[in-house]
Amino acid sequence: MNFRAVILPIGRLLIIIALFMLLPAGADLIAGHNDWAVFAVTALILGAIGALISAALEGQQFQFRPKETFLFVNAAWLVFSLAGAIPFYLSEIGLSFSEAFFESVSGITTTGSTVITGLDTQPPGILLWRSLLQWIGGIGIVVIGIWLLPGLRIGGSQLFAIESSEKMSKPYGRVEPFVARLLMLYLTLSVFCALAYYLAGMTAFDAINHMMTTVATGGFSTSDSSLGKYPTNTILWIATVFMLLSSLPFLYLIRLAEWRDNPHRGQVRFYLALIAVISFALFLAINSRIEGDPFRLLTLATFNVVSVITTTGYAAGDYLLWGNFVIAVFFFTTFIGGCSGSTSGGFKIFRIQILLSAIRTMLKRAVHPSRVIEPSYAGTPVSPGVLEGVLVFSVLYTATFAGFAFLYMMLGLDIETALSASITAQANVGPGIGPIIGPAGNFAPLSDTVTLLLAFQMILGRLELIGGLLVFSPYFWSQN
Amino acid sequence: MNFRAVILPIGRLLIIIALFMLLPAGADLIAGHNDWAVFAVTALILGAIGALISAALEGQQFQFRPKETFLFVNAAWLVFSLAGAIPFYLSEIGLSFSEAFFESVSGITTTGSTVITGLDTQPPGILLWRSLLQWIGGIGIVVIGIWLLPGLRIGGSQLFAIESSEKMSKPYGRVEPFVARLLMLYLTLSVFCALAYYLAGMTAFDAINHMMTTVATGGFSTSDSSLGKYPTNTILWIATVFMLLSSLPFLYLIRLAEWRDNPHRGQVRFYLALIAVISFALFLAINSRIEGDPFRLLTLATFNVVSVITTTGYAAGDYLLWGNFVIAVFFFTTFIGGCSGSTSGGFKIFRIQILLSAIRTMLKRAVHPSRVIEPSYAGTPVSPGVLEGVLVFSVLYTATFAGFAFLYMMLGLDIETALSASITAQANVGPGIGPIIGPAGNFAPLSDTVTLLLAFQMILGRLELIGGLLVFSPYFWSQN
Repeated sequence: MNFRAVILPIGRLLIIIALFMLLPAGADLIAGHNDWAVFAVTALILGAIGALISAALEGQQFQFRPKETFLFVNAAWLVFSLAGAIPFYLSEIGLSFSEAFFESVSGITTTGSTVITGLDTQPPGILLWRSLLQWIGGIGIVVIGIWLLPGLRIGGSQLFAIESSEKMSKPYGRVEPFVARLLMLYLTLSVFCALAYYLAGMTAFDAINHMMTTVATGGFSTSDSSLGKYPTNTILWIATVFMLLSSLPFLYLIRLAEWRDNPHRGQVRFYLALIAVISFALFLAINSRIEGDPFRLLTLATFNVVSVITTTGYAAGDYLLWGNFVIAVFFFTTFIGGCSGSTSGGFKIFRIQILLSAIRTMLKRAVHPSRVIEPSYAGTPVSPGVLEGVLVFSVLYTATFAGFAFLYMMLGLDIETALSASITAQANVGPGIGPIIGPAGNFAPLSDTVTLLLAFQMILGRLELIGGLLVFSPYFWSQN
Repeated sequence: MNFRAVILPIGRLLIIIALFMLLPAGADLIAGHNDWAVFAVTALILGAIGALISAALEGQQFQFRPKETFLFVNAAWLVFSLAGAIPFYLSEIGLSFSEAFFESVSGITTTGSTVITGLDTQPPGILLWRSLLQWIGGIGIVVIGIWLLPGLRIGGSQLFAIESSEKMSKPYGRVEPFVARLLMLYLTLSVFCALAYYLAGMTAFDAINHMMTTVATGGFSTSDSSLGKYPTNTILWIATVFMLLSSLPFLYLIRLAEWRDNPHRGQVRFYLALIAVISFALFLAINSRIEGDPFRLLTLATFNVVSVITTTGYAAGDYLLWGNFVIAVFFFTTFIGGCSGSTSGGFKIFRIQILLSAIRTMLKRAVHPSRVIEPSYAGTPVSPGVLEGVLVFSVLYTATFAGFAFLYMMLGLDIETALSASITAQANVGPGIGPIIGPAGNFAPLSDTVTLLLAFQMILGRLELIGGLLVFSPYFWSQN
């Protein structure tokens, strides 16, 4: 294992974190809040460490094999999470270290579960830092999803490797020009989203914060009542549109903007149709149950479904009060997730499409054992490697979800809270089901052990499980 | 579709059902209970219909393709379930038709969930009929599991096709000599089990009834308190041993008796080790929580784990009172199931072994993308067909479980009851989790719609999903 190859980019990462930390330092300084010093000192120390590492190793060439890549990605998440937790821990907000770590991980993984109560009265620095963590995490995920996972052939994502190779010479080669285009797209989405929120009535500070957590499909808010603070139809539809856009494959959006042929069209169509069907079913269910303006109910239904399926996790009112059918819809919708190569997490749409095709194929083969019938995706047969990747990933996804739920039950959570905590963390959604961790609840009542396990599961979910579980296998370390 | 090919064996099946129905008729006649007439008249009518069908079609040769086989198996379960429900519906016990159907399906599929309360005071005919349904269902499952599923390549079960082809010329060929040996084994297990129960203190009637539901891994009892009626350590260990034996591959037992080389050894070892680990963990958990004789607690832990994992579903006391850890163990143990080619249901051990190997393979491939690393079972590589079969089956199993759970939640069940009802029906275990359908509960409070859906799911589970879902696909009917 070449550790120095991993340490150099970690050093650069520390410098980036330090630079971003100057923003909440400035915000608190302007607002006259003591926490500005926490951010400034932390930034100084992290920046210095980063600069030392970079200076020591700069200019050397390191070989990056899959092993080093996996180790780097894991180390990067861990270092970023720990660095991000320091201000939460040292600030006047009074979190334990495991709570601070949970909040930081929930930010960077763009999950959006929180242990902080009384958000509305917190100083601007803390609020801005939470939003920034998600905003940085969001673009990080896009880069990992487009560049890294297909190259490492994680969970069938090599299906999209052709496209990324179109942009670069090799998977671990120069990525700067490609990343620059993704950044441009991300910044464009961000500017339009912030502007829309501001014009629709948010304060400038709230517009910027919610913009960051919307385009990252993260879900942190500056208020305990989440978007319930601005519950107008206009703002809910703005959030819906930008959550949706950010959960589409970024390559799809780039190609759409360039009017080019689009291989992601099938995935996007299936995704939008699914959202339309679930939202409309939910609308019918609540319309028959609650008195109210139908357009308002349609807005709430669509907003909440999009919020969960894009793995954002905003809330506008407690949808769990709408009855068992609605609870069932939200519980199972948490398992779906957005599109590959977007900011959203979860199981991913292309995998659902391939699974459906595999099941159809299996039924057909049962009738005609001697005929050659193959599963397909977007009109072409799925290669055995991709099919096996998707299938094994599905099993691992279910097993990891079940394993963590089992741990949470062992640690004292009831079955409902345990199951929904497990999936909401793994899919990086945010809110769960039930009185504790539901959309109107908060993760603060959970024990330190549960909180740390949830943070770990969020990172696993972000690394599509395999990327994270690998470093815990003896095989990984025994190989040269 | 050749319907007459399907109708002839259904006719024979009706005659068999009618003959078995004479037993409860006799039991009620001896006990002087009015229900004897219900059984006798039903037997007469069913027998007559069966005889007519047989006479009309006897001697003709029909072609049995996969299509006809699937249709026959589905029709057989449906006809048997309906025929079995008639006595429950007409008897003095006072069940609605959907309740009677549920009880019959729960019997034949050897699930063991019940809607009847006050079992201890029911007439012997009804009790005997419940046990007989399970006993017949049990051997039916063994034959289907060894002969039919591998021939139809359902869910990777073609892995065991070599062995069955050893016994017969072709999958749908003559099976009589082979079935005769399985029957001998089943009868031997039955005689020893009944004898052991009787010698350990059961009444002759209870010994025979519990024998039938033990070797079938069914779980019906003659008492509302299940084996809590005879809670001695001796009887619980007898039940444990015979449930375990009946959940092993019957071909393994036959080969063991013949001292022959045994390809099932790996599956059995893994299975027994898993049971030992879970039972011991449970013992440690309840030993630290409950005052009592350690051997007694070990007995209860092992008995209850074996009861759930073999998909029998007996209870001896309400294990849900032992705390969240115990509830978690039982909830997740319900997903495991016994060995292939036994009387037990569920997901099956060989599939878990293949999945574990597939996940290990995937992690290794991530480190060494260019090396050839294949999943294996029992020391040999798994063929792509078997691997894909097992993987797609796993996904379908999870999706079906989740889909039905979703329906049960929509129909008003809470999340805990819905999830555990779904898996206990699909895996043919019997009891669920929670106050309603837990080991101390009863399925009677559920609505007719839920009851019918659960019965349907039990049959799907018995047909390893694909065998049952297929007849609902338009593709099945559109093909010639």
